[in-house]
Amino acid sequence: MVDLSEIGKRARSSARILSITPTEQRNNVLRDIGQLLLEKQTNILAANEKDVENARQQGLSDAMIDRLLITPSRLEGIVADIQRVIDLPDPLKEILDEQVLPNGLQVRKLRVPIGVLGVIYESRPNVTIDVSCLALKSGNAVILRGGSETIESNRALVEIIQMALQKQGLPSQVVQLIESPERRYVLDLLKMPSYVDLIIPRGGAKLHQFCRENSQIPVIVGGIGICHLFVDESADVEKSVEVIFNAKVQRPTVCNALDTLLVHRGIARTILPKVFEQLSNAGVTFRLDQSVLKLLNLQPSRVYQVAGEGDFDTEWLSLVLGVKIVDNIDEAIEHIEQHSTAHSDGILSTSPENIEMFIQRVDSAAVYVNASTRFTDGGQLGLGAEVAVSTQKIHARGPMGLKELTSYKWVIVGDGHVRR
Amino acid sequence: MVDLSEIGKRARSSARILSITPTEQRNNVLRDIGQLLLEKQTNILAANEKDVENARQQGLSDAMIDRLLITPSRLEGIVADIQRVIDLPDPLKEILDEQVLPNGLQVRKLRVPIGVLGVIYESRPNVTIDVSCLALKSGNAVILRGGSETIESNRALVEIIQMALQKQGLPSQVVQLIESPERRYVLDLLKMPSYVDLIIPRGGAKLHQFCRENSQIPVIVGGIGICHLFVDESADVEKSVEVIFNAKVQRPTVCNALDTLLVHRGIARTILPKVFEQLSNAGVTFRLDQSVLKLLNLQPSRVYQVAGEGDFDTEWLSLVLGVKIVDNIDEAIEHIEQHSTAHSDGILSTSPENIEMFIQRVDSAAVYVNASTRFTDGGQLGLGAEVAVSTQKIHARGPMGLKELTSYKWVIVGDGHVRR
Repeated sequence: MVDLSEIGKRARSSARILSITPTEQRNNVLRDIGQLLLEKQTNILAANEKDVENARQQGLSDAMIDRLLITPSRLEGIVADIQRVIDLPDPLKEILDEQVLPNGLQVRKLRVPIGVLGVIYESRPNVTIDVSCLALKSGNAVILRGGSETIESNRALVEIIQMALQKQGLPSQVVQLIESPERRYVLDLLKMPSYVDLIIPRGGAKLHQFCRENSQIPVIVGGIGICHLFVDESADVEKSVEVIFNAKVQRPTVCNALDTLLVHRGIARTILPKVFEQLSNAGVTFRLDQSVLKLLNLQPSRVYQVAGEGDFDTEWLSLVLGVKIVDNIDEAIEHIEQHSTAHSDGILSTSPENIEMFIQRVDSAAVYVNASTRFTDGGQLGLGAEVAVSTQKIHARGPMGLKELTSYKWVIVGDGHVRR
Repeated sequence: MVDLSEIGKRARSSARILSITPTEQRNNVLRDIGQLLLEKQTNILAANEKDVENARQQGLSDAMIDRLLITPSRLEGIVADIQRVIDLPDPLKEILDEQVLPNGLQVRKLRVPIGVLGVIYESRPNVTIDVSCLALKSGNAVILRGGSETIESNRALVEIIQMALQKQGLPSQVVQLIESPERRYVLDLLKMPSYVDLIIPRGGAKLHQFCRENSQIPVIVGGIGICHLFVDESADVEKSVEVIFNAKVQRPTVCNALDTLLVHRGIARTILPKVFEQLSNAGVTFRLDQSVLKLLNLQPSRVYQVAGEGDFDTEWLSLVLGVKIVDNIDEAIEHIEQHSTAHSDGILSTSPENIEMFIQRVDSAAVYVNASTRFTDGGQLGLGAEVAVSTQKIHARGPMGLKELTSYKWVIVGDGHVRR
């Protein structure tokens, strides 16, 4: 039996305390978490072993089991990530705006934590540490709701986080885990707007949809990328093939990997044979629009399949690539408008006019010019870390790092000022 | 019969067009709206007269009827407001961030419109023009859902806005009105996340709650202010009385007016008699905590009523003021934490330590020091205009002007860059 509103109350009151904690104290907690993770390694690995055992008994796939596995080297990786977060500047030190109005009122906008985050995630237990550390660094309390398949690992990890908090004189309830695997607690969490300020779902499209449809709390929608590259007639062929290869092949299972390639008719005969050769050598299979089959006179095969209905609305997350010929940039942009999830879309071109038009008209979180879509990532784009990739236009868009976990307050200082 | 998804589709496609419209063209639309409002004054006043007539027949109060009334001088005021919006800088011209990463990638964050706004409001028909002009200036399409009591006026006003859009070669569907008074369309609007990006409710607490509980689209929660002033022991008595008077009396019907006065025990006997005298002369009645009655040895009367349960959780919106004695600043801050809606709360003090503590610990959209809470307003705080006052911590907090109606996109320019 989990008393969720009790968890909420404790989160709210400990968030207040954390929000006025000095930078050094917050960093010390992170440092202690890193140390304890190494010291208590045996406990963590034992807890994780139970999860792995359960997963095997329940017949989970090897890929799934690999996702939830903690190894000594993965643990070292997690500790290294914590050090990177410690090294980032404190987002709470920033004054966003400061001015004196003509009437003498001093107006400042101070960056403050959001308050209490509710994070709902699946599988990978490193998220437990990642998210908690980003929340702590940015002064936010967090209520975690991990997957049932990692419950033992998450318990062990949260215990360590809470030990570190207590060691630094902070309430352990800054980070809390909903320990029950019952799904109804997810729904209950979404209905506590007085205790939780923001819901961050990390998982598949279904989880995002469930949160959006049921939450009374603002939700960060994102993490689903149907990503496009458009090869303009003027594209540099060699560089473009390399970018396409990277966007599709370097890590096909993630949201910023390429899903659909749109090719201008005028360059298709030149570039597509090279794309097909290089990518199929790496194991890629293709879903080809009729336009491609016709122009290149291709016969459908295991590698060259005919695109079916819905194929251009699919996030592949695997070595599959949709390909379509377009007659001009307008058709490419219209295809993207219709099929993109507004995550990461790009143009490969040497025409300044077309590049500018693409940048202006394509309304995605990340718009690329002659670069791989794989760069949509907090680490890659200079944020140091990321808690999620937002594809909505409210609050934050694209990779969300520490600053994106903050809000601001207006501080208005007068000397007996009244409004006339 | 209203086809809401058709309205949604049209809004989405015209938002795309508006988002790439030059500044001048958007300003020209606003200018034309202003001109047409004056030219077509007779039509507008006639339509408004019908609404007033209906309101009378339905027995609406004089105050309600006054809220929906349009007069020639009010129309002039609206036109003057439009000119102020025209004069504001274009928020879409701003580059939020620009850097070249060590690998040579150029990364920019460009400000872009949010897309399609859904605005749900009551009574005052000037909101129709206000909101449409702010949306247009910031490049957003808008779907309006006004109150049934102003349907005729809103039709006439939206017709003018659409004429101005067409005159400038823009789709008239940039601004659309849901003309049916049926409530189910509000619910339907909240369930169209693919067509609407943000819901802005402008009305009472019930409307906000309804939106939050039913929306699948992000909602700006706000506009409800249970506002506090805390008179610290060190306060300057004369200035403080003036600030309290202004915060309560200058315009008691709005969200940033004072609701509760917290007074340090050490200064209560000095300041409260002056507060009571000046405010009761202006028609204010008081809801006094037992602590006040005891300390000042007051007898309950029509002016000095005993505070009942819930009185300190009430947004008065009238000439009523709750008063309570506190023993120290901690008790004041705790009272605010418990009862405030995090809109506007302030301290009256000359102690730098207490001022700093109050600023740090009180987590409201606007935190005041020695100034009236009445300044929480886009115009007063230098935003030029406002579409709403947000009391949530996501996206925007406090007064929302043009910039707060925008998002951003990442533009990443490479030269064949791939991720390693």
